[in-house]
Amino acid sequence: MQEELKILWEAYKQAVRSGGNPQALYREMVWPHLLARWREAPQVYPEPEAFAVSVHTLGTSPEATILAILGAGAEQAYVLHTRESAQYLDRLRVETGRPIQAIEVGKSDVTAIYREVKRLLDRHGDVPLALDLTSGTKAMSAGLAAAGFFFRRFYPKVRVVYVDNEDYDPELRRPRAGTERLIILKDPHEALGEVDALFAKEFYQKGEFTRAAAYFGGMVGRTGNQGWSLYQALTEMYAAWHALDFAEAHRKGKGLLSRLSENAWLDHPLNKNRASLRSQVDLLEVVSHFLKTQDLGRSEGVYGLARSLRLLSEREERPVLAALYAYRALELLLQERLLARYGRRAEEPGLTPEEGARLRKVLSEITRKPEEEVELPQKLGLLSLLALLRALEDPLLSRKPLSELQGLAGVLQARNSALLIHGLDVPKEGQIKALKGLVQELLQDLETRLRREGSGLLGVSLEPVPLGF
Amino acid sequence: MQEELKILWEAYKQAVRSGGNPQALYREMVWPHLLARWREAPQVYPEPEAFAVSVHTLGTSPEATILAILGAGAEQAYVLHTRESAQYLDRLRVETGRPIQAIEVGKSDVTAIYREVKRLLDRHGDVPLALDLTSGTKAMSAGLAAAGFFFRRFYPKVRVVYVDNEDYDPELRRPRAGTERLIILKDPHEALGEVDALFAKEFYQKGEFTRAAAYFGGMVGRTGNQGWSLYQALTEMYAAWHALDFAEAHRKGKGLLSRLSENAWLDHPLNKNRASLRSQVDLLEVVSHFLKTQDLGRSEGVYGLARSLRLLSEREERPVLAALYAYRALELLLQERLLARYGRRAEEPGLTPEEGARLRKVLSEITRKPEEEVELPQKLGLLSLLALLRALEDPLLSRKPLSELQGLAGVLQARNSALLIHGLDVPKEGQIKALKGLVQELLQDLETRLRREGSGLLGVSLEPVPLGF
Repeated sequence: MQEELKILWEAYKQAVRSGGNPQALYREMVWPHLLARWREAPQVYPEPEAFAVSVHTLGTSPEATILAILGAGAEQAYVLHTRESAQYLDRLRVETGRPIQAIEVGKSDVTAIYREVKRLLDRHGDVPLALDLTSGTKAMSAGLAAAGFFFRRFYPKVRVVYVDNEDYDPELRRPRAGTERLIILKDPHEALGEVDALFAKEFYQKGEFTRAAAYFGGMVGRTGNQGWSLYQALTEMYAAWHALDFAEAHRKGKGLLSRLSENAWLDHPLNKNRASLRSQVDLLEVVSHFLKTQDLGRSEGVYGLARSLRLLSEREERPVLAALYAYRALELLLQERLLARYGRRAEEPGLTPEEGARLRKVLSEITRKPEEEVELPQKLGLLSLLALLRALEDPLLSRKPLSELQGLAGVLQARNSALLIHGLDVPKEGQIKALKGLVQELLQDLETRLRREGSGLLGVSLEPVPLGF
Repeated sequence: MQEELKILWEAYKQAVRSGGNPQALYREMVWPHLLARWREAPQVYPEPEAFAVSVHTLGTSPEATILAILGAGAEQAYVLHTRESAQYLDRLRVETGRPIQAIEVGKSDVTAIYREVKRLLDRHGDVPLALDLTSGTKAMSAGLAAAGFFFRRFYPKVRVVYVDNEDYDPELRRPRAGTERLIILKDPHEALGEVDALFAKEFYQKGEFTRAAAYFGGMVGRTGNQGWSLYQALTEMYAAWHALDFAEAHRKGKGLLSRLSENAWLDHPLNKNRASLRSQVDLLEVVSHFLKTQDLGRSEGVYGLARSLRLLSEREERPVLAALYAYRALELLLQERLLARYGRRAEEPGLTPEEGARLRKVLSEITRKPEEEVELPQKLGLLSLLALLRALEDPLLSRKPLSELQGLAGVLQARNSALLIHGLDVPKEGQIKALKGLVQELLQDLETRLRREGSGLLGVSLEPVPLGF
């Protein structure tokens, strides 16, 4: 049949050269054969798909649209036409032998095209649907393409298609009959392996490190470029960090730094932020070591952990979780302070009778209970930690007005009754704010102490490093 | 100048009618004036934008591309051309007076276009960039449109543009000179207010209810349709539920049900799932009431809360948080069981000496410590709750092999040393799995009891209801 069309084409060309009307001759000599061929076996690239619905723009070239309808092979075909191109609708029905649903749009009204496509997708978005942009004005084709690629995000069964030709006859200004084919357009995501990096980056910037890591991991296979595995390690480091698994985070970070030093990766974009990265890995190491030794004397470890908890508290939308992070940061900072400044441990404070009396007095003031009703705890919880520091004349806690501490008392006592600890209460945003204020003051004070001691951890940014692409 | 072009056009038409070559006459009579006009004041719709870079496809109509380059007005212009259209590059340079960077692509090679556009975006993605699809084959235009609308997600400063004309002269088969304009295409998201519903739905399906609620809320203003505010209430209900704020979740759900009963909203898609919705709101009410009264005798409340905690534990990727949810669910279920079956409360179990001795014996077996080293706690924690139920010959806990309980002991004791409670340990996934298994058994047993009591809460799905669009 391909051969037959070739012979026909030459005959047609001769007839035009002899002065015939090219349009009339085409319809008479060529088109019936081309149509018959497509009705029988449409040419589709890369391969025919079972579309349930097709949507077409229609301009002044109904032949292309007829081929597109036959190529898509859908049971339901919608045609977006202009007032002018309405004249071809009957021909479309007759020559394709299919029912056509016609929708009129303005020839430059892109918004109308969006609206119609969206309406059709609302109705048919769950079945394979072809959007054909072959015919129509630039506005119509561009609008259909825009709609197609935009809505694919929400309706993954939508494909954009068009009728192309492999050979154009410049003399006749027409595609050579028989070289037409319906192309099913890949989207850039399918065609380019490296596009996943953009999705990974999107997740990374939103702090969804586990998902970002999965994308980066998949890219190694798809692109054959091991450079992506360094990004995978980076995102896994942050994922573990935000899950408070510092040992794992440190292991990932250390491995990443060592790979970045290999010859093969000296030019890797992450090496541009090596200094930031190294300082983060150092912080992870210090916290990880602190957690392993459980030694509150390691003030730098407490500092790194408390800053991480504060960050997570700020990022967390759910008060019930944000409060937990903040409570724990506060407890750690108070415990560290008690040990560093006064050599006492919360689980065994070893108070002298005189200290015990002072603590009882402070607790009585803060809780507004008579002294005789105050019970001294064996292990110090949040409130008694705070009270003991004040009783010991800690500068930060002594200079606070009593009213502020009285306000905090309820918040601190609420910890145990929080829904995720042992109680049934949901912390309120206001309570968390008060907690955070105190955490901030304690952190600043600890920072000043660490600065005097020449710590290298001050000012380490907890923000994920830029990816460099 | 517009008037001048009109007169020129008529003169040109006459010249063609008199038998002149249309192409040659156009270039001689019309084009210089049109070009002069666009060099001075390009026509751009809806209004000119300050593009830094423009990218164009080039086919056999260099005039349109020249207008597009002038209309975009960028300092850097890239032109994707085919081998055939390379011949026009010099003309583009001369007539636009701008440097043009040429990139050759195959005329049907869509992937090459994607690759080139991505390469250019990697380089210029942070500045306003125009992708012009006016000229070139369908494959080239479609490829550029696909790339443009796909990459806008990641590079929001990209715009897709094309040169349109308001008037086409059918006799001359050309746009009437002076009616051309560069159109900056809106994307469907900007053009159609209701598209935000798709983004909202995407967040809803991922369980990101707070973000979904923000989108639904914004839609009321954008579309003027109050129907979206019902979706906002729905998503806010789930957001509060997942933040364990049952009182707020119940308030939102109750308000939503009441609005769905109003005449105006009887046809609202959410009414299709009214039964599911009502059962969820009932569950929220029961839990909310339980939390308010803090009465563990309200078994249905414990049931609803424990199921919610289990769901959140399963959805949570971070072990440190997943463990907290599971521990709390387990504690609640054990406390409820102790009260419902044996009338004892964890905070004051009131054991007889005989029961105390039995508890000591069971604790000694489970922890593998000599009985004399076992200390009986005042308030029962997880492990002692479990042990007491076994000591009281609770059927579920008595029939468990001792080895299983011994395995659990470490997990239960680890709760207090968890990083977010009072300790510095990170729970491991294996520990959480063991916890969840026990939660599951206790829940099933509670369900059996509630079924006997004819509870209406059994089998209520915790899954968000379908949105109906």
